[in-house]
Amino acid sequence: MGRPRTPLIDRERITTVALRLVDEHGEFSVPAIARELGVRTASLYHHVDGRDGIVELLRERVCAAIDASALGALPWDAALAAWARSYRAAFAAHPRAIPLLMAAPVRAPRVLGQYEAAVRALLDAGFAARDVLTVIIALENLVLGSALDLAAPDTMWELGDDTARTPLLARALAAGPEGREASFELALGACLDRFRALLDEGS
Amino acid sequence: MGRPRTPLIDRERITTVALRLVDEHGEFSVPAIARELGVRTASLYHHVDGRDGIVELLRERVCAAIDASALGALPWDAALAAWARSYRAAFAAHPRAIPLLMAAPVRAPRVLGQYEAAVRALLDAGFAARDVLTVIIALENLVLGSALDLAAPDTMWELGDDTARTPLLARALAAGPEGREASFELALGACLDRFRALLDEGS
Repeated sequence: MGRPRTPLIDRERITTVALRLVDEHGEFSVPAIARELGVRTASLYHHVDGRDGIVELLRERVCAAIDASALGALPWDAALAAWARSYRAAFAAHPRAIPLLMAAPVRAPRVLGQYEAAVRALLDAGFAARDVLTVIIALENLVLGSALDLAAPDTMWELGDDTARTPLLARALAAGPEGREASFELALGACLDRFRALLDEGS
Repeated sequence: MGRPRTPLIDRERITTVALRLVDEHGEFSVPAIARELGVRTASLYHHVDGRDGIVELLRERVCAAIDASALGALPWDAALAAWARSYRAAFAAHPRAIPLLMAAPVRAPRVLGQYEAAVRALLDAGFAARDVLTVIIALENLVLGSALDLAAPDTMWELGDDTARTPLLARALAAGPEGREASFELALGACLDRFRALLDEGS
């Protein structure tokens, strides 16, 4: 019996190479993926739905690391917080994919499924349908900005020798900011408080 | 009298070309800038402090569009809100520069000056020095995530023909989310409320 043939290219491999290119260069191209895989560009198109299709494969890959299981299992606010933290960690692992993924509408079915679960959790909690996406987008803005920040260098400001020009910034830095986690949790808590108020107002 | 000589390259032109490359490709390289300007790569290094220097020129250019005049002129919360809105608009004009700029520490003097003004406004309001950068970073996370979102396509989710799999998301979309501005303002208001509480707690 022959061993099963390992194809030179498949969607998984295409996604892996595309993600590596995005991680390294902030961008990918179909010819560059083909070069890396040692196949002709035209061959790739037998496996994926063009460049847009590869973007959606990247989205599915990055979002597969998000644990959305809290949605529907925990109370809506705890669930949203757990989803947000996991969402942030997943995107912080691939910060350069963030602008690329945000520049295209979400079409990947499994990712749409996560939004469906988030919408369900909010509707079940009593949020008005018209408020649900406003809440989700507000949370995503925070999550994605913070994911980029998490991938940034530890030193966010280099004052150089000329601290005389920024004495207060130097003082704030010396006072020891609590760091990125504290900032994210502060804003996350702030948003959840406001969402609770929205719900109490009859949404 | 001869006319003043227009140099082929100067820092302004280098910055303009680098920003165009980043806007188009999400990245720049020193050789690519040299090619566009029709000069040798080595010549560029007479004008800028290497690649890192160009990143700081980009930061100065993008941040020059931020109106930070409210800091120190308005009450701290109104000032922070005005700064955040202008900061968001400036970065929304160059979304692909966001990961690039976030990946390097801030060194550009004029940009450090904006942070100095924000720190001063918060210290003057009575915030504890140790809380000041936590507050600023929380606000920046929201601003930058939302700037990316502002540059995204109008349609954020494409449900395709198969809305049976995402009926609640379809319902929320049909209910007319108030849109990106509402989401940003909701989260901004949430953060300001929480910052006020932090100040009231004795920071």
